[in-house]
Amino acid sequence: MIPHSHHPPLHADEFRRQGRLVVDFIADYYDRIDEYPVRPAVLPGFLTRQLPETAPPQPEHDALAAALRDVRDLILPGLTHWQSPRHFAHFAATASNVGALGEALAAGLNINPFTWAASPAATELEVVVTDWFGKALHLPENLLFSGGGGGTLLGTSCEAMLCTIVAARDRKLAEIGEERIGDLVVYCSDQTHFSFQKAARIAGIRKVNCRAIPTSWESNFTLSPKALLAAVRADVAAGRVPLFLCATVGTTPTAAVDPVRELCAALSGAGHDDVWVHVDAAYAGAASVCPEFRDAIIEGVEAADSFSTNPHKWLMANMDCCALWVTRPHALTEALGTDHDVILKEDHHHQHGDGAAAVVDYKDWQVALSRRFRALKLWLVLRCHGVDGLRAFVRSHVRMAKAFEDMMRADARFEVPVPRQFALVCFRLRPPPALVLLRRNRKLLEAVNATGRAYMSCAVVGGVYVLRCAIGNSLTEDHHIQEAWRVVQEQATAVLAAAGRRADEGTVVGNARCVEMDEEARAPFLVGKEREVTIP
Amino acid sequence: MIPHSHHPPLHADEFRRQGRLVVDFIADYYDRIDEYPVRPAVLPGFLTRQLPETAPPQPEHDALAAALRDVRDLILPGLTHWQSPRHFAHFAATASNVGALGEALAAGLNINPFTWAASPAATELEVVVTDWFGKALHLPENLLFSGGGGGTLLGTSCEAMLCTIVAARDRKLAEIGEERIGDLVVYCSDQTHFSFQKAARIAGIRKVNCRAIPTSWESNFTLSPKALLAAVRADVAAGRVPLFLCATVGTTPTAAVDPVRELCAALSGAGHDDVWVHVDAAYAGAASVCPEFRDAIIEGVEAADSFSTNPHKWLMANMDCCALWVTRPHALTEALGTDHDVILKEDHHHQHGDGAAAVVDYKDWQVALSRRFRALKLWLVLRCHGVDGLRAFVRSHVRMAKAFEDMMRADARFEVPVPRQFALVCFRLRPPPALVLLRRNRKLLEAVNATGRAYMSCAVVGGVYVLRCAIGNSLTEDHHIQEAWRVVQEQATAVLAAAGRRADEGTVVGNARCVEMDEEARAPFLVGKEREVTIP
Repeated sequence: MIPHSHHPPLHADEFRRQGRLVVDFIADYYDRIDEYPVRPAVLPGFLTRQLPETAPPQPEHDALAAALRDVRDLILPGLTHWQSPRHFAHFAATASNVGALGEALAAGLNINPFTWAASPAATELEVVVTDWFGKALHLPENLLFSGGGGGTLLGTSCEAMLCTIVAARDRKLAEIGEERIGDLVVYCSDQTHFSFQKAARIAGIRKVNCRAIPTSWESNFTLSPKALLAAVRADVAAGRVPLFLCATVGTTPTAAVDPVRELCAALSGAGHDDVWVHVDAAYAGAASVCPEFRDAIIEGVEAADSFSTNPHKWLMANMDCCALWVTRPHALTEALGTDHDVILKEDHHHQHGDGAAAVVDYKDWQVALSRRFRALKLWLVLRCHGVDGLRAFVRSHVRMAKAFEDMMRADARFEVPVPRQFALVCFRLRPPPALVLLRRNRKLLEAVNATGRAYMSCAVVGGVYVLRCAIGNSLTEDHHIQEAWRVVQEQATAVLAAAGRRADEGTVVGNARCVEMDEEARAPFLVGKEREVTIP
Repeated sequence: MIPHSHHPPLHADEFRRQGRLVVDFIADYYDRIDEYPVRPAVLPGFLTRQLPETAPPQPEHDALAAALRDVRDLILPGLTHWQSPRHFAHFAATASNVGALGEALAAGLNINPFTWAASPAATELEVVVTDWFGKALHLPENLLFSGGGGGTLLGTSCEAMLCTIVAARDRKLAEIGEERIGDLVVYCSDQTHFSFQKAARIAGIRKVNCRAIPTSWESNFTLSPKALLAAVRADVAAGRVPLFLCATVGTTPTAAVDPVRELCAALSGAGHDDVWVHVDAAYAGAASVCPEFRDAIIEGVEAADSFSTNPHKWLMANMDCCALWVTRPHALTEALGTDHDVILKEDHHHQHGDGAAAVVDYKDWQVALSRRFRALKLWLVLRCHGVDGLRAFVRSHVRMAKAFEDMMRADARFEVPVPRQFALVCFRLRPPPALVLLRRNRKLLEAVNATGRAYMSCAVVGGVYVLRCAIGNSLTEDHHIQEAWRVVQEQATAVLAAAGRRADEGTVVGNARCVEMDEEARAPFLVGKEREVTIP
């Protein structure tokens, strides 16, 4: 074995040797991943205590091999295994061979394509691949470069939200004056991901001007156009300025789909078409590759100003990759563009002269200057799977989710209180007619996750605590779903038995028809308040 | 060869095969990189025209191999080769074997460590490695977790600036009221990277409240504490509220180092210690691993509120990786933290109970929720090179820059108008005593870059156009520097000869003692204005 120190830091032959070590390490991990508990049973400080307090002054002999042994022995046992076929807790961060290798290849080339001139092929590939991807999702033409709009690849949906809010904000402030920033109002529902309000706050929107409009069982927790319009009108009446609506296609708690067409029509009909409408389809956007889901997802999107989805979530593109399309790139570049950097301008000028053809400089579409070559990864995924491959992938997870739901509906102890959407099943132990023990669904989740054989999460919708089983990992197969269901059944039996014992011991709650834990979205913790909840 | 379609998207054995293809592809690229022109001679649309308009419905046979052939034949010829040993244009995006493979490994594990619970080992490794790295840079204890502060790994310096501005902003607005956002003022110099003003604008700071304080030849283009204080006082007198100072250690145009100690002392002495001082050491921070550069870089940093540097720039950590340290993590998490997400809170609660030990949830230190496992890469770089290895790396580039400078100073046609700092040499053709032709340094840059044998950039400082030669790539060796110098000499001879011919043709400028192109930092383009410039 050649010790590392004989080689310079970047060395082709040594890269071949070290690259094989890392490739085999990753392959071994995929081979063995099902043997790890999905969520590790570790306590804070477990790793910190095992590592030295300073970096080594000198590398060890064959330091990469030694480090990989530490990754295997110290780090892997402390990871939550997002690629485990038993990870159902969060919307997946789906991996694929080509997604992982696309990242590796981009890291190997290690370019920084912040302008067209800084790496022309990378910029052009991003232009091409965002159009390819948009067409595969059946997006309306006005969001594609081929139709006057255009797309970019960012890291996350939060960035997409921040960039579009800032674009909308600066366009509006140019009209009404910078000093009125405190009057701008943004809208979402109480189901919208918290990132939206965070992004609005970062952009300087006042906390009190972020409207999270309540949703209800009646609309399956989708945003009501009528409620939106009422909020907008109240703000206008109070002298405030409606700025931005974030509609969600596939909310985090239940994958609910806000009615984009009706929301846009409501705003437009009331003379508010200058409100920027962003459609956040971080999770569910992927399903729009399938004709059978397309209408549910992109209906009405042609009236929106921007649309984003994360191929790193459900389309095998590995972390991180968020595709954002806008109908008016100029609104983005007006707000986020910079043209006073001599170094970059000269680069551009040298290649094109003063009357240069318009090229895309993606630094002006995002927060940061520097950026990775994400287009390479997404292009590889599309090339190597084809649109049909993406469809088959999405359908396999939806089919498994349907199977999970069917098994659950066949067990009278459980109910599915909100409709399954895509590959997300929300469920809970059905409340008995007379008495119910507090927090038993929470105990069920805790018990399921403690097995290490399945990892699920929860949400509270309409005051009801539900467990979430989100199916979407590449390694998940039918037998994992069946086993997950067995784990849920076994743990439910144990939780109900323990609850029965406590009932005998007199710790039940009086004569409530249905008592469940209640949780306001902003309550400090999931403890305390309980109240009667009736599902309509 | 097994066609891809026989395998599911994530498949260990197929990953071994495909991984070798990609590893060999990258190694072959490093082997051949010196044969490519550093900057490609392509025109806009060159790649777009060669690719189909939609993604394929079905993958080809052995699609990854086919795609890699297209990367080689279509994409590589259109890249600007940032890893070329002849790339001297921008501060490097340094690659190393372990940096690239660290990215690959993180992409393979593909976790999303947004909270401690979402992947405990990843969060703990980030806590450990930011302390390791901070100690290697000799950072003051108050920026490290071990001293009550703490670090995180973001993508870019722009994110570090945005997050700290928002933290400072919200702390100040909590004191004076949200409605006074329009009164907040941020400070930098006219040499500060444009990202800072962009970040301030994103955070809702008014354009007119971004002060870019002029610098001068006298101070080598560093920010004058006196000028800063005068600006702060004028703002206070006008009823505005000084919020934030961005001091730069290693500016983009000339790698100038703002006097952090004196700037902090000036603010503090005038009763403005509540102004948040951020030190942006994106490029030069790396050099602080060397004791001989340490004082120049981190002197006075103990009085700052935050410090950031990009190990992806000069420390072999591949794109992207920015380390940000703050003295008061609480200020960041107050502004960027979210605690009303039931799904994440429950995860936390299950593992720790209500009285949980405090853990770091890095989602509250950044803009986005999702994040990659960057700590793994930086840890591998530190493990596999050791601090001594980093020192040797930095010193090799500084030594080469010194050699380049020495060769230049020995040729009377050239001058080095600002001191070489670290591994950046700024130079220009020396103006002759009587006449000078317009824009000949610009023509020189254009001619050098058109050779494809060296790629440099430019800056305009104090009205003077200089060429920038930034040395910092892993593959750059002494002979590349010698060749770069020969390229500059050859092209200078050609440019001067052409200028001589034009002089004979009567296109020279009258009797100016020294005419050079002038460029105000915000002028729309590097054309038009010329004026007399005398370098003091």
